[in-house]
Amino acid sequence: MSSHIDRPLILITNDDGFTAPGIMALVKAVEEFGALMIVAPDKPQSGMGHAITINNPLRIHKTHYFENHRAYNCSGTPVDCVKIGIYKLEQENRKPDLILSGINHGSNVSTNVLYSGTMSAAIEGALFGIPSIGFSLLDYDLEADFSVTQHFVKKIVKQALANKMKEGTCLNVNVPKLTLSEIKGIKVAKQARAFWDDTFEERLDPLNKQYYWLAGEFKNQDTGTDTDIWALENGYVSIVPTQYDLTAYNTLNETKEMFEL
Amino acid sequence: MSSHIDRPLILITNDDGFTAPGIMALVKAVEEFGALMIVAPDKPQSGMGHAITINNPLRIHKTHYFENHRAYNCSGTPVDCVKIGIYKLEQENRKPDLILSGINHGSNVSTNVLYSGTMSAAIEGALFGIPSIGFSLLDYDLEADFSVTQHFVKKIVKQALANKMKEGTCLNVNVPKLTLSEIKGIKVAKQARAFWDDTFEERLDPLNKQYYWLAGEFKNQDTGTDTDIWALENGYVSIVPTQYDLTAYNTLNETKEMFEL
Repeated sequence: MSSHIDRPLILITNDDGFTAPGIMALVKAVEEFGALMIVAPDKPQSGMGHAITINNPLRIHKTHYFENHRAYNCSGTPVDCVKIGIYKLEQENRKPDLILSGINHGSNVSTNVLYSGTMSAAIEGALFGIPSIGFSLLDYDLEADFSVTQHFVKKIVKQALANKMKEGTCLNVNVPKLTLSEIKGIKVAKQARAFWDDTFEERLDPLNKQYYWLAGEFKNQDTGTDTDIWALENGYVSIVPTQYDLTAYNTLNETKEMFEL
Repeated sequence: MSSHIDRPLILITNDDGFTAPGIMALVKAVEEFGALMIVAPDKPQSGMGHAITINNPLRIHKTHYFENHRAYNCSGTPVDCVKIGIYKLEQENRKPDLILSGINHGSNVSTNVLYSGTMSAAIEGALFGIPSIGFSLLDYDLEADFSVTQHFVKKIVKQALANKMKEGTCLNVNVPKLTLSEIKGIKVAKQARAFWDDTFEERLDPLNKQYYWLAGEFKNQDTGTDTDIWALENGYVSIVPTQYDLTAYNTLNETKEMFEL
């Protein structure tokens, strides 16, 4: 399977939908590095985690939204987009050299990697053995300025294409909302131990029926200086090398003692 | 926060929806062990992974489907159900002693843990520091016989209530489709290295428009005898202790060399 003659083939997706400014910023940042194929959700898919569509059909439509780049929007989740992108390329005997996801409008640090459609798309790429990177900017504003993030996207993608990333891993890149001169550099970090302390807002709809809306506060329980949260709070771009083996190896033995009756 | 006086409080959910036979089998298997609260999706939510509902309201309704047990169905995902269950109990100054998810109609071995709503619900419990277990039976039949699985549910839940599971971990339990006498025992195992080799069926709808439907074959690349797939293929119930830190610790150093410019 020859994936490219001279130019790397880069598959791009996101979770905010194909019309979100973040994915256009990503496309613009990396178009100099290779041939692009974009398969992105046709609507926002935030918080979809690793969801896939199995009980319903998927629709995909060609779009000229990204000018001369080959692009499709898809009715499914970010992970569906990666699967269908790889499938379509496979039919042409090609395989992406790199999968990029984002740029997400908002943080994907720490345990948010579990809920994040952006990062699940990258993890799906890793499952296929394809180097994959998810990018997020710590700014939820739809009018956010992606130029600083684009600077780091270029730097990181160049390195990723020049080096061999370990198979089965992907990168979780988060960029602080700072100017280029304020950013101190890149820190490779581990996922901070943190969780969402959830509440739900209970409201009444116009028909006087109750509904709930998820709210909550993200709480960092990790005082380490080797975490993604620490790096971002201290002016660095964070990169967490990420993998998909959830086995709790450090508890295998005590679990054996407990249950292998 | 006193979680119970004499009887453990067990929060139960699933991903096949509250009317699926698997969750009723789970309720029946564990009702002798404590007070139950059931919050389960109001429709099938297979393949939803760790998805949460953030851009839409959630509806929950009390149901008498589980007779005298306190039970709600919820318009959201399995992870939403866990969050809302914990939230409702918190308002009463209570906290579940154990969270159970399932019994899933079908396998959740290996990397399926990423796509599985059943297991994501258990992982969400672990994020809250609550011991959690996901149960799956390797039989997709809606008329599947859950009695053998119930036998192991009882065994495992009894142990989990009597011992302290390591905080931040949950258990992924899969039961082979065998009779009780055919099952050799319980094996604690690691998540096998395997992936979905996807294809999509391309079809035309009645209006002659194209749609895609995810299909594919699950491929085990792992020849080890210490995996969940090996255990199940060799007549054992598999338990994988599962955690939510996706950091690829074994590549931290080489990632530093590559990107900390």
